[in-house]
Amino acid sequence: MTIREIAEWLGGDIVGSTLEGQPEINRVAKIEEAIPGSLTFLANPKYEKYLGTTNATAVLVSRKLDLNKIKGRDSVVLICVDDPYVAFLHVLKRLTPSIDPFFPGIHATAVVSSKAALGKNVSIGAYAVIGENAIVGSNTKIGEGCIIGMQSKIGADCILYPNVVVYHQCILGNNDILHSGVVIGSDGFGFAPKPDGTYEKIPQLGIVVIEDDVEIGANTTVDRAVMGDTHIHRGVKIDNLVQIAHNVVIGEDTVIAAQTGISGSTKIGKHCMIGGQVGLTGHIEIADSTIIMAQSGVHDNIKEPGKSYLGTPVDEARKAQRAYIAIKMLPDMLREFTSLKKKVDDLEQRLAGKQ
Amino acid sequence: MTIREIAEWLGGDIVGSTLEGQPEINRVAKIEEAIPGSLTFLANPKYEKYLGTTNATAVLVSRKLDLNKIKGRDSVVLICVDDPYVAFLHVLKRLTPSIDPFFPGIHATAVVSSKAALGKNVSIGAYAVIGENAIVGSNTKIGEGCIIGMQSKIGADCILYPNVVVYHQCILGNNDILHSGVVIGSDGFGFAPKPDGTYEKIPQLGIVVIEDDVEIGANTTVDRAVMGDTHIHRGVKIDNLVQIAHNVVIGEDTVIAAQTGISGSTKIGKHCMIGGQVGLTGHIEIADSTIIMAQSGVHDNIKEPGKSYLGTPVDEARKAQRAYIAIKMLPDMLREFTSLKKKVDDLEQRLAGKQ
Amino acid sequence: MTIREIAEWLGGDIVGSTLEGQPEINRVAKIEEAIPGSLTFLANPKYEKYLGTTNATAVLVSRKLDLNKIKGRDSVVLICVDDPYVAFLHVLKRLTPSIDPFFPGIHATAVVSSKAALGKNVSIGAYAVIGENAIVGSNTKIGEGCIIGMQSKIGADCILYPNVVVYHQCILGNNDILHSGVVIGSDGFGFAPKPDGTYEKIPQLGIVVIEDDVEIGANTTVDRAVMGDTHIHRGVKIDNLVQIAHNVVIGEDTVIAAQTGISGSTKIGKHCMIGGQVGLTGHIEIADSTIIMAQSGVHDNIKEPGKSYLGTPVDEARKAQRAYIAIKMLPDMLREFTSLKKKVDDLEQRLAGKQ
Repeated sequence: MTIREIAEWLGGDIVGSTLEGQPEINRVAKIEEAIPGSLTFLANPKYEKYLGTTNATAVLVSRKLDLNKIKGRDSVVLICVDDPYVAFLHVLKRLTPSIDPFFPGIHATAVVSSKAALGKNVSIGAYAVIGENAIVGSNTKIGEGCIIGMQSKIGADCILYPNVVVYHQCILGNNDILHSGVVIGSDGFGFAPKPDGTYEKIPQLGIVVIEDDVEIGANTTVDRAVMGDTHIHRGVKIDNLVQIAHNVVIGEDTVIAAQTGISGSTKIGKHCMIGGQVGLTGHIEIADSTIIMAQSGVHDNIKEPGKSYLGTPVDEARKAQRAYIAIKMLPDMLREFTSLKKKVDDLEQRLAGKQ
Repeated sequence: MTIREIAEWLGGDIVGSTLEGQPEINRVAKIEEAIPGSLTFLANPKYEKYLGTTNATAVLVSRKLDLNKIKGRDSVVLICVDDPYVAFLHVLKRLTPSIDPFFPGIHATAVVSSKAALGKNVSIGAYAVIGENAIVGSNTKIGEGCIIGMQSKIGADCILYPNVVVYHQCILGNNDILHSGVVIGSDGFGFAPKPDGTYEKIPQLGIVVIEDDVEIGANTTVDRAVMGDTHIHRGVKIDNLVQIAHNVVIGEDTVIAAQTGISGSTKIGKHCMIGGQVGLTGHIEIADSTIIMAQSGVHDNIKEPGKSYLGTPVDEARKAQRAYIAIKMLPDMLREFTSLKKKVDDLEQRLAGKQ
Repeated sequence: MTIREIAEWLGGDIVGSTLEGQPEINRVAKIEEAIPGSLTFLANPKYEKYLGTTNATAVLVSRKLDLNKIKGRDSVVLICVDDPYVAFLHVLKRLTPSIDPFFPGIHATAVVSSKAALGKNVSIGAYAVIGENAIVGSNTKIGEGCIIGMQSKIGADCILYPNVVVYHQCILGNNDILHSGVVIGSDGFGFAPKPDGTYEKIPQLGIVVIEDDVEIGANTTVDRAVMGDTHIHRGVKIDNLVQIAHNVVIGEDTVIAAQTGISGSTKIGKHCMIGGQVGLTGHIEIADSTIIMAQSGVHDNIKEPGKSYLGTPVDEARKAQRAYIAIKMLPDMLREFTSLKKKVDDLEQRLAGKQ
C-alpha cells in the first residue's frame, strides 16, 4: 500500500511531506527499529525522541501532537489519526499473513462423547476430550489436549488453546478465549477445622459461569463455587497466572493483570482495572471503575467508584504515594529527631537554670 | 425434608416459630439470595443484617447467637447448631445430586505400561499415561491427560483431575487430591555459577513425597529435591498456583493459600496457616501453629509457636499493624516535624537573645 | 569409592585424619542426616555447628574454612576443595543411578504432522502433537502430552517435560529445558479501550524466541510479542510460575526466581539476579548485573549496572533496609513525637511568660 492509501483507509491526514513519488509501505516496525519502507507509530511521549532519527518512511501520530515539536524532516511522512496505536494495529493486522493454528474439523483422535452436542463448523484438536452431555457451540475451536468435562457448555465462536481444562458443569458464553493451561472449575479452597486439628473438605458443589467476550490468560485458575457460581461477566479480560477463588464475581469489562489473586466471595465491580500481583481478601466488594495499582493488597470494601488505590493495605493512590516518599525520608528524619529531642532537653535545662 | 427432620438430623434446636404446617425445605441458598422453601445459614456476623429481611424459610444459626438481636419474625425459623456453616454444608451435600466426572474403569486410549501395577477399581481417563513400574492404588481416579512418570507411586483413594503431571519416582500417599495442572517433581531451581558467568545445572536427584489426605490446588508446582525429598506431610492443604521449591518440608495439617511461594529447604511446622501471596525465603524454619498473613515476606526463622505475623519482613501481627497505621500518619508528621524544628530553632534563638 | 579415591577425583586435599583402613563411601547425605559411610559437605556457615556432631565419614569443606574452628575429631575426615557444594554434586551424580524418563523413539500414539521435520534420535512421548511444518532438532526429547504448534522450531538437545505447550511459530534454541505446564507463545495481554467502555483485542502477531541453554520452570508462561518477538537470551534460567509478558527481552545468563512477573516490553540486562515474587512494570530497562531482591516492585529504569535493589518501589538495598528498620521504630517515634511537641509548646509558653 502507498502512504496515501493507508492514510485514506485509516481516515488520517498526511502532514510534513510533499509525497512525491508515492512511497510504498511494505512492513511495520517499532519506531526505533524501523527501516525505510516501514510504517511506525508514536503513542507514548517517551518515544518522541525517535521522531528525529527514525528511518521509517511514515509515522502514525496523534492529531493532538504539537507538530512544532518536530524538526522538519523531508524523509519522513506523518499521518495524523485519532489513536495512532490502534491505527497502527489495523495496518499491522492487514499486512501480517494470518495463521489458523487449529485443526480444521474434528481430529480422528479426539474423544467426543456420543452424548455430547457439537455445533456447526467446530474445530476439535488431537487428543481433546469432550465429556458426556457437554455442549460445544458453532465455530468454536478447541485445541489439542483440551479436556471439557461432562455437562459443561462452551458457547459459540470460542477459542480454547491446547491443554485447557474445563471441569464438569461449567458454562462459557460466546466469543471467549482461553489460553493454554487455563483451569476452569477446580474445587474452591474450603476446609472446616475439626476438633482434632485436621480439616474436613467442604464440598464445592457450585459451578463457574463465564459470560461472553471474556479472555483468560495462560495457566490462570478459576475455582468453582461452594454453591451457586463463580461468575465472570461479559467483556472481562484476565491475564496469565491469575487466581480467581470460589464464588468471586467480576463485573463487566474489568481487566486484571498477571499474577493477581482474588479471594473467595469477593465482588469486583464493572470497568475496574486491577494491576499485576494484586491480592484481594475474601468477602469484600470493589466499586465500579476502581483502579488498583500493581502489588497492592486490598483488605476492605471500596465503596466509592472511580478512584485509584495503591499499597498494602491500599490507600487512595495519591496518599499512598506520599507515604512511599515519606518512608524514604524516614531514616534521615529519625536521625534528626534524636538530635531535636536533645536540643529540646537542652533548652529545658537552660530555661530551668534561668529560673 | 421438613425443617423438623433437618433439625433432628443435625442435632439442632428450633427456635422462633410454632412450626405449624411443617414447612418443607427443597433447596439451600445464601442468606441474601434465599427464596421461600430455602434453608440458609448465618456464620459471619457481617451477614446478621440479612436476618431481618431474608426470604429463607429456615436459617441455621450458632447456639452462641444472641437471639435478642433478632426482631421477632414469624416467617423464618431458626435452627440453632454448634457450627452453622458445617451444618449447612451437610444439608447442601445431601440435597445436591452428586456427579462423578471420572471415567468408570480404564479408558481404551489410556497408555498403561505393561510394567505398571494398578490396584482394584481404579479409574483412568482418556489419554492418561501410566509409566513403567509406576503403581496406582485401589479406587484411585486419574483424570484425562494425566501423566504419571515411571517408578512413581500413587496411593489408594486418590483423585487426580485432568492434566496433572507427576514426574518419575515421586510418591503420593492415600486419599490425596490433585487438581488440574498440578506439577509434582519438576526439577528444583539450582544452578552453580561458573567463572565465565554462565551457570551449570545442579542435578536434581531427589524426589517428592506427599503423605495421606493432602489436597493441592490447580496449577500448583512442587519441585523434586536435590537429594532426599521435598516432603508434604499428612493433611496439608495447598491452594492454587503455589510454588513449593526443592527440599521444602511442610508439617501436618498446615494450610497454604493461593500464590504463596516457599523457597528451597525451608521447613514449615504443623498446623500453620499461611495466607495468599506470601513469600518465604530459603533455609528457614517456621514453628508449629504459626499464622502468616497474606502478602507477607518471611526472611528468618520463626521459633516461637502459635503466633501471628504480618509484613515484609514480617513482624508480629500487632506490631506490624501499628507500623501500617503509623505509615499512614507519616506524611502529616513529616510536615509537622519541619515546623517543630523551626519552632525549636526559634526558641533557641530567643533564649540566646535573652542571655 | 574410598575417601582417597574421591579426594583424588575431585582434586581435593585430605586433612584431619590418618585415613588408616581406607574408609569406603557408599552414599551422600545432608550433614545433619548423614550416617557412617556417608560423604557430606559444608558450604553454608549456618551449618558449621553440625561439623562437631555429624555421623558422616567424610565432609567436603572449603579450602578457605578456618580449620581451627573445628574441634579435632578422629571419626570424620575433611576433604578441602575449592567449592564444596559443586564437588559434592559431582559425587552425588556419580553415585546416583541415572534414569531417563523419556520414551525411546517416537511413541505410536504421537501425532506428528507429515509436514513436520524431525532430527535424528528424537524422543516423542505418548499423545504428543507436532504440528504442521514444525521442526524438532536432533536428540531432543519431547514428553507425553506436549503440543508443538505449527511452524514452530525446537532446536537440538532440548528437553520438554510432559504437557508443555509451544504455540505456533515460536522458536527454541539448542539445549533448552522446559518443565511441565510451561506455555510458550500465548497471546500478550493487549486490549484497546473503545468509546463504549468495552475492549478490542489487539492482535498479538509476533513470536517468542528462546536462545540456547535456557531452562524454564513448571507452569511458567511466556507471551508472544505484539509484533517482533519476546526474546529470552542464551543461558537464562527461569523458575516456576513466572510471567513473561509480550515483547519482554531478558539478557544472557540472567536468573529469575519463582512467581516473578515482568510486564510488557521491559528489557532486563545480562547477568541479573531477580528474586521471587518480584514485579517489574512495563517499558523499563534494567542494567546488566542488577540484583533485585524478592517481592520488590520495580517501577523505573535501573541505569547503573551491578547494584542491588529492594522494596516497593525499589530503592538501593542498603537504603531500603534502613527504611525497613526505621518503619519498625516508627510507632514508638510517633508517641515520642507527640510528647516532644507538647514539651516545645510548654517551653514556648514558659518563655513567653518570662517576657
